[in-house]
Amino acid sequence: MAITDSSQRSGELARAKIIDTAFEHFARHGYQGSSLGRIATAAGISQSGLLHHFPSKAALLQAVLATRDLRDTVATGITPGNLADLDFTALLTFFTQVVRHNAANRDLVRLAHLTAVEADNPDHPAHGWVTGRQRFLQSLIENALARDATAGTIRSDIDTRTVTELLVATMEGLENQWLLDPGIDMVGSFQRFATHLRTIITAVP
Amino acid sequence: MAITDSSQRSGELARAKIIDTAFEHFARHGYQGSSLGRIATAAGISQSGLLHHFPSKAALLQAVLATRDLRDTVATGITPGNLADLDFTALLTFFTQVVRHNAANRDLVRLAHLTAVEADNPDHPAHGWVTGRQRFLQSLIENALARDATAGTIRSDIDTRTVTELLVATMEGLENQWLLDPGIDMVGSFQRFATHLRTIITAVP
Repeated sequence: MAITDSSQRSGELARAKIIDTAFEHFARHGYQGSSLGRIATAAGISQSGLLHHFPSKAALLQAVLATRDLRDTVATGITPGNLADLDFTALLTFFTQVVRHNAANRDLVRLAHLTAVEADNPDHPAHGWVTGRQRFLQSLIENALARDATAGTIRSDIDTRTVTELLVATMEGLENQWLLDPGIDMVGSFQRFATHLRTIITAVP
Repeated sequence: MAITDSSQRSGELARAKIIDTAFEHFARHGYQGSSLGRIATAAGISQSGLLHHFPSKAALLQAVLATRDLRDTVATGITPGNLADLDFTALLTFFTQVVRHNAANRDLVRLAHLTAVEADNPDHPAHGWVTGRQRFLQSLIENALARDATAGTIRSDIDTRTVTELLVATMEGLENQWLLDPGIDMVGSFQRFATHLRTIITAVP
């Protein structure tokens, strides 16, 4: 059994090495600008060795994105399950954590942005990931606002859709600028925006 | 002279055809994912014919971006020169025009976003374009706020940097979402944000 364990272990190590290398390539060159041959070479494996682990470039991108999601979940300690229970104030605190996490993980942000622009076409292998991610973000905000509306803690004339679009826009648009200029105070600006947004939507007792 | 004119004209037509084709390719596949060979084929010209007009892929991208800027200027009727004179209210009106123009020109927005993420590296041929564009946008906002501060029409405790980052973020972040989901009301959400922003920074007389 020791031999099987060791071979499984070396397979896992090879997979992890390929995913890390592919992560760098996709984050740097995009999906279309990356090649399996160059990823294999950089990972120190033959192309047929790579194809043994991931049958296509599409499968490799999907594995990279799943790894990215897992790292985000581990880093922030929050899973889709417990996110659904947050009210709007708690959600803004969570988003602030995410922005801070992103500010320390440039490649993560770059991969997400590059993939999002590339994958707007339904034929792109990451189309489901990027649209699902956007819908998930929107639904978190909508659920939190609905919960607060029921509790009467936010103003009754809030336009959920506008708040949702502007909140997502602020997070993503600050990232756009910060990718080009790391001097942008992404975390500070987001915190000031979040404080302001919370103030204007809170019901006056 | 007629022969020279006709040959000049056919050279201009060939250049225009190459630029339009390259625009589509760069907007769809990014700079790194596009190839001069494929662009030449799609434009109905040989690769050496293309290289006669544009000596490299970098030169071609720069020509495409310059054409994009020219189209924006023509469409909005505003040049960098007369923009510098706007106060903040007029600037928000101009930005609303730009958002409306962008909402009707998906490829323009896609090219700008894809190029911005790809070109964060100083070695990328469009790095100067994307960082210059971001600084230009920032300086427009900062100038307008400074003009209004001098005139006493905005509150004295406004943090210029935060307002600038959030305004740029809102425009770009709404575009991010709209690229993935054209159902996003980019123009309406931006207008509601602009109205709100103007209200909160205006000095109470």
